[in-house]
Amino acid sequence: MDNTIPNSRPVSFSRTVMTELIMPDDTNPLGNLMGGNLMRWMDIAGSICAGRHCGSLVVTVSVDHVNFSKPIKLGDVITLTATVTKAFHTSVEVYVEVMTSSFEGGIPEKSNHAFMTFVAIDKETLQPKAIPAVELETAEQKKLAEPASRRREVRLILSGRMKAEDATDLRAYFSQMG
Amino acid sequence: MDNTIPNSRPVSFSRTVMTELIMPDDTNPLGNLMGGNLMRWMDIAGSICAGRHCGSLVVTVSVDHVNFSKPIKLGDVITLTATVTKAFHTSVEVYVEVMTSSFEGGIPEKSNHAFMTFVAIDKETLQPKAIPAVELETAEQKKLAEPASRRREVRLILSGRMKAEDATDLRAYFSQMG
Amino acid sequence: MDNTIPNSRPVSFSRTVMTELIMPDDTNPLGNLMGGNLMRWMDIAGSICAGRHCGSLVVTVSVDHVNFSKPIKLGDVITLTATVTKAFHTSVEVYVEVMTSSFEGGIPEKSNHAFMTFVAIDKETLQPKAIPAVELETAEQKKLAEPASRRREVRLILSGRMKAEDATDLRAYFSQMG
Amino acid sequence: MDNTIPNSRPVSFSRTVMTELIMPDDTNPLGNLMGGNLMRWMDIAGSICAGRHCGSLVVTVSVDHVNFSKPIKLGDVITLTATVTKAFHTSVEVYVEVMTSSFEGGIPEKSNHAFMTFVAIDKETLQPKAIPAVELETAEQKKLAEPASRRREVRLILSGRMKAEDATDLRAYFSQMG
Amino acid sequence: MDNTIPNSRPVSFSRTVMTELIMPDDTNPLGNLMGGNLMRWMDIAGSICAGRHCGSLVVTVSVDHVNFSKPIKLGDVITLTATVTKAFHTSVEVYVEVMTSSFEGGIPEKSNHAFMTFVAIDKETLQPKAIPAVELETAEQKKLAEPASRRREVRLILSGRMKAEDATDLRAYFSQMG
Amino acid sequence: MDNTIPNSRPVSFSRTVMTELIMPDDTNPLGNLMGGNLMRWMDIAGSICAGRHCGSLVVTVSVDHVNFSKPIKLGDVITLTATVTKAFHTSVEVYVEVMTSSFEGGIPEKSNHAFMTFVAIDKETLQPKAIPAVELETAEQKKLAEPASRRREVRLILSGRMKAEDATDLRAYFSQMG
Repeated sequence: MDNTIPNSRPVSFSRTVMTELIMPDDTNPLGNLMGGNLMRWMDIAGSICAGRHCGSLVVTVSVDHVNFSKPIKLGDVITLTATVTKAFHTSVEVYVEVMTSSFEGGIPEKSNHAFMTFVAIDKETLQPKAIPAVELETAEQKKLAEPASRRREVRLILSGRMKAEDATDLRAYFSQMG
Repeated sequence: MDNTIPNSRPVSFSRTVMTELIMPDDTNPLGNLMGGNLMRWMDIAGSICAGRHCGSLVVTVSVDHVNFSKPIKLGDVITLTATVTKAFHTSVEVYVEVMTSSFEGGIPEKSNHAFMTFVAIDKETLQPKAIPAVELETAEQKKLAEPASRRREVRLILSGRMKAEDATDLRAYFSQMG
Repeated sequence: MDNTIPNSRPVSFSRTVMTELIMPDDTNPLGNLMGGNLMRWMDIAGSICAGRHCGSLVVTVSVDHVNFSKPIKLGDVITLTATVTKAFHTSVEVYVEVMTSSFEGGIPEKSNHAFMTFVAIDKETLQPKAIPAVELETAEQKKLAEPASRRREVRLILSGRMKAEDATDLRAYFSQMG
Repeated sequence: MDNTIPNSRPVSFSRTVMTELIMPDDTNPLGNLMGGNLMRWMDIAGSICAGRHCGSLVVTVSVDHVNFSKPIKLGDVITLTATVTKAFHTSVEVYVEVMTSSFEGGIPEKSNHAFMTFVAIDKETLQPKAIPAVELETAEQKKLAEPASRRREVRLILSGRMKAEDATDLRAYFSQMG
Repeated sequence: MDNTIPNSRPVSFSRTVMTELIMPDDTNPLGNLMGGNLMRWMDIAGSICAGRHCGSLVVTVSVDHVNFSKPIKLGDVITLTATVTKAFHTSVEVYVEVMTSSFEGGIPEKSNHAFMTFVAIDKETLQPKAIPAVELETAEQKKLAEPASRRREVRLILSGRMKAEDATDLRAYFSQMG
Repeated sequence: MDNTIPNSRPVSFSRTVMTELIMPDDTNPLGNLMGGNLMRWMDIAGSICAGRHCGSLVVTVSVDHVNFSKPIKLGDVITLTATVTKAFHTSVEVYVEVMTSSFEGGIPEKSNHAFMTFVAIDKETLQPKAIPAVELETAEQKKLAEPASRRREVRLILSGRMKAEDATDLRAYFSQMG
């Protein structure tokens, strides 16, 4: 690893906050934020967070399922917070949470979240490069990080890179329920 | 259901093809298409497909995990094809596949896919409304549609709307592996 | 010509379909799609089609007159289909047709069309390069291609590159009417 | 006609100048301005000019052929000048000329032009409305306006609204060449 | 004042953090962020902050001078932090500070700041409305707020709404230097 | 100085006119043009004007305070006119004035103005370069240029590059009022 980059970095080091105002072109014919526009912002917030943690360029590898349960309206304000949850060898999992409030303020409510993965890319070789471990600092961060290996297996199965029978963590998780 | 909308519609009825040219503002500092921009287009293609099938306005409910394994370059041409796979009561699952080729053509290669779900919304009441069933026409369509209930359970578990122990299809799928 | 590019290609080889959803920023103060935004999409669809046929980069040379007889509304879905009609030495004529339907579907109606020409550009020399001939496959394609030389003369006259008296095809066409 | 709008207006009344800087997203993979983006600006400049002349909302009816003979580069500055040439009953022909220079200045060169037509729309009835005549002020304006009826016939023929044999002006023009 | 809005709010209540990645279309021909794009983001961040403090819609009234001393590059990450400094009767002064770092992280450096003013607008009457006072919490906040009345006089003079001789605070400030 | 660039240039040489139509994405939730979008256009118009005067690339150095007293509405037409007022050694002050009218025309009214400064950058060395002096041609231009040194002192004080006690012109201006 690059000498100037430490072996591990705390979650707070790369925490990224991004606030956006929903403009007309972000909305669908119902006047709600289009899901795809939100995903675009989530990708940008996640990328910046991953780049800070890894100290390198990063490329989006995957986005886990995203739910759009509550409509977000034209003129609403959304705040995306991206934090790293777990570092694998050359890639990092990032949790992006979206809070929404009206323009006039009020209590922000959680509207969406996603787990995304990014791979660190060396600027010279354009190859994946090793990245710092994640130092979990709070109970909440640990809770988010705990199922990271199961999420990874779901990703690998659904993208055809792992057979379901090889998903040891997932199988243990389901079998324990008896 | 609206009298003018039939009880079922074939997949071909709503198949949607969308071709896009990767422009400078779609790319990250490495000159590759940003994952989030691709997701935005996938959402638009999926929405149009779902709207055609349902004959109504639709709202994005969820996007399953998306992989970004191959970089797509500035000036490349991508073709998104969206087809419905399965209708639930008021929502529909849509499969969006992305093929990429260079501007000069050549054999397009598959670069990404996603399963997305959309809920049909009645224009007057703004409430979810019943939608037509999906008539599967080809073997390929049937293969895509078969694991739809397992995908749905994964979505429900990961979004906290179902407990893992209630995911009957998923549990059967994993337990069968012995 | 580049060895890897055949002497002729069928129309179907480069047929390009592009679907777009009319968003707020695409509309004028009456809530209709602005003509210029439609022309921008026609240019992109035509470019991609020409690039596929020619197997090279292309540059827009001209757009024939475009009519905007029917208003296209915010939230409507348009489908642009671009097909080659005739290859000249280093340039190709492309026909772009625009069909419109509401977001909820219904029978798409033709709203616009244009004939555009593109010149193929060699990536290394940045000079125009020879292109494959067009293999017309259907009666409809032949009907579209038939007046191509007259359209070319109109272009040359109106752009000042040909004198009206040298427009042999056009003059024959008008004189035959007696 | 609306009392506050005179029976005729000079060309200078509605002359519209629009300057734009070519940004990365306006360019194609060769680094040149995309034809479609230029057409979008021509439509905006033409609309504003037509709206000023007519004193009403306007809708683009047609764009005559546009040539893109000289590449316009990233960072270049273009100046679009739109002037009315001829008023028909409810529609007006507008001439849009595009001059290009580098960012550092130098002598601007003409790179493109187009004749466009717009119809005036009454805000209340949304129907076409009568518009002021055009007062031609200079020899150059008269020269531009003179072939307006022939251009109109070309438009009508090419859009299928007039048969070639009914194009009296065009036929006279071609027959006079013997 | 609206019953649900308190008479005063601490600075922290409305502090707004906005992170942006510099994309190709944000840059000038030198590859640096265009000043105007940065001002657009400063306006959005400032508006959101003002809207939170006032609990209402807000309209930008003025932006004080902005300096662009250090170039910000394509791919850099900027973080805008907006905090209120002083409430006048119906308007609020907001301080927006911009920190810049490379995509790979490193120590962020301050690159710009601006003082902006926004007026609170009642949604029903569309008239200016009274707003909460600002509770300054830290020494740094107090230092920023202290010259607020002098800044206001500079604004009023330069916008022609106050004569220089009536600028009591400014005159006192300059005369004290003897 | 570059041989091809004269020692001085008249204001008219670089006068830049830019007309824009307010589109949905330019507006805030009240349907008015966002201040930041206007500042972005002012920066582009000012940059083009400065580039023409200097005959070189330019970078925005500062924008003096801007007032947004009158709301500009969706569908309005704005005309920005940028003219140079004073050349310093390597930088130039530009005055940008914004006139607004409805789409249907009517008497345009002044809605905003700003003084901006730009530094000329040599394309090869990327260093500031000497620029031509400004030839003031009209009484109005002279009136605009007269307080240029006071404006410069305000900029230098507010950006922390000059102490208030060193602002000779400003102090003289205030002291003369007795």
